[in-house]
Amino acid sequence: MTSNAGDPLPSWNDGAARRAILDFVAGATRNGGPQFVPPEERIAVFDNDGTLWAEKPMYFQLLFVLDRIRALAPHHPEWRDTEPFKSVLAGNIAGVAASGEHGAMVLLAATHAGMTTEEFSAIVRDWMSAARHPATGKPYNGMTYVPMQELMQHLRANGFKTYIVSGGGQEFMRPWVEAAYGVPPEHVVGSYVDLKFEVRDGTPVLLKVPSIGLVDDHAGKPVGIQRFIGRRPVFAFGNSDGDFEMLQWTTAGEGARFGAILHHTDDKREFAYDRDSKVGKLDKALDAANDNGWVVVDMAQDWKRVFADAATD
Amino acid sequence: MTSNAGDPLPSWNDGAARRAILDFVAGATRNGGPQFVPPEERIAVFDNDGTLWAEKPMYFQLLFVLDRIRALAPHHPEWRDTEPFKSVLAGNIAGVAASGEHGAMVLLAATHAGMTTEEFSAIVRDWMSAARHPATGKPYNGMTYVPMQELMQHLRANGFKTYIVSGGGQEFMRPWVEAAYGVPPEHVVGSYVDLKFEVRDGTPVLLKVPSIGLVDDHAGKPVGIQRFIGRRPVFAFGNSDGDFEMLQWTTAGEGARFGAILHHTDDKREFAYDRDSKVGKLDKALDAANDNGWVVVDMAQDWKRVFADAATD
Repeated sequence: MTSNAGDPLPSWNDGAARRAILDFVAGATRNGGPQFVPPEERIAVFDNDGTLWAEKPMYFQLLFVLDRIRALAPHHPEWRDTEPFKSVLAGNIAGVAASGEHGAMVLLAATHAGMTTEEFSAIVRDWMSAARHPATGKPYNGMTYVPMQELMQHLRANGFKTYIVSGGGQEFMRPWVEAAYGVPPEHVVGSYVDLKFEVRDGTPVLLKVPSIGLVDDHAGKPVGIQRFIGRRPVFAFGNSDGDFEMLQWTTAGEGARFGAILHHTDDKREFAYDRDSKVGKLDKALDAANDNGWVVVDMAQDWKRVFADAATD
Repeated sequence: MTSNAGDPLPSWNDGAARRAILDFVAGATRNGGPQFVPPEERIAVFDNDGTLWAEKPMYFQLLFVLDRIRALAPHHPEWRDTEPFKSVLAGNIAGVAASGEHGAMVLLAATHAGMTTEEFSAIVRDWMSAARHPATGKPYNGMTYVPMQELMQHLRANGFKTYIVSGGGQEFMRPWVEAAYGVPPEHVVGSYVDLKFEVRDGTPVLLKVPSIGLVDDHAGKPVGIQRFIGRRPVFAFGNSDGDFEMLQWTTAGEGARFGAILHHTDDKREFAYDRDSKVGKLDKALDAANDNGWVVVDMAQDWKRVFADAATD
């Protein structure tokens, strides 16, 4: 036991953000109080990339795609002369980007389709255990944020259901988020490709096919929330303009509401970026935070620590 | 208290079906036993139409559509001369059916799209409180099956999450299934139209648009299960060939599994139909039940009562 025993948010510095969280949860659970939220309405939604784990130098799922192309290349000699594979294999990220939306779909089809859901889950699990982040050398699930894990745990301890609502792929997240965040597969809303049910040699399988069913980002987030959860959350936490509509939809509801944005201000322990970043651009949502009453969490100021294996200060 | 106190399934007659249910739940919760199911894997899925409530003379959602067309007709004088509206207004069901898939889409667009999700929910709630079944005179939510409510309650009391997985519309079910079955909106998987996020005069809304996102029936059921729940259920209960793939997907998994089919054999208390019925056709799934170990529940034999206000015998 440490001096933090009993503190639900030991990795958060005392400050306006921490107090706003604790006040919201205390109010939501005070039966008969003006901020009370009935247990069945206690739905909290969290973006993943840049909110629950890091997203630099690019979305980790893109790094997974690049790793998969390299792993599959020996079986596809034709990729050496075909874009966007050629650029991927040459480590030419600008070339990959130049292949545009068509190139992205080709890479998606090569790495996220043409296999069963169970085969894909096994590939993701293997990658998560073997792959390492290019800058930190950590496994990717070691780049999740401890303060956010504490927050999710605190919400669940107070009767909230914590959902992930991410632009990332739902089948990419489900194999590891339960261990990392305590979020079960059925509380994962993400982008997805279509599925096809087939019986192969008497065994039913679900095949991932290369057509996009939902892009769960920007206006796709409230759509995904309504489709999967069917009620409006009372709590939303994001970090980029891709979360704008989710924050807007959540906090426009009646009664007690909580919206927050994680602002990446910490180039010592993590990364510092906002308005000019290609990944996790935070501009419009930052401007709108004050008018909407959204809490802006300053990573450098508000967090005692970021990752699990870093010493607390 | 009655002599049934302590019996989790008082509306079920003692017989093979009741014993199979109780045995499965007892085995699934016996820690260390061969049939144990870890709590996080205790996912049970139920079809709705014909499994949790009646579906005759036609799916109740179709009766809702017909009622809505009649209610909206005064604002649409052109419908008097336009199919399929003309047939609906004339009570000519054969004429409606003759309008085929195109007619169905036209009726769907007129009754399930062009409004916000919240407006649609209010319409469904009003209809549920005012509308009456043409044969029984009951409100439609009074035609839910008491034995199935007991079964869902028994499963939840043993750590199962009970999901509805229905060909019916998810936004059509969500407004009333929590009160009727104890199933919250986030545990409702159903067919759906696409949604569009809009900000109207500063207020964000989700608009139902007339394009189909998922038909959650037949092979669409395992697809909906994987998309929404992200893990394979261990328990599935249906009543028609539309549930075949859901039963197949559920019971093909490893470990303890339970599949069941409600066979409508009771023309005194409910309806009797199977292989030749247009609504809720049960043919292929009935033939496959024995080979797959699916329990066939005989409504006339296995249920002491059907609806809530009928006397027990």
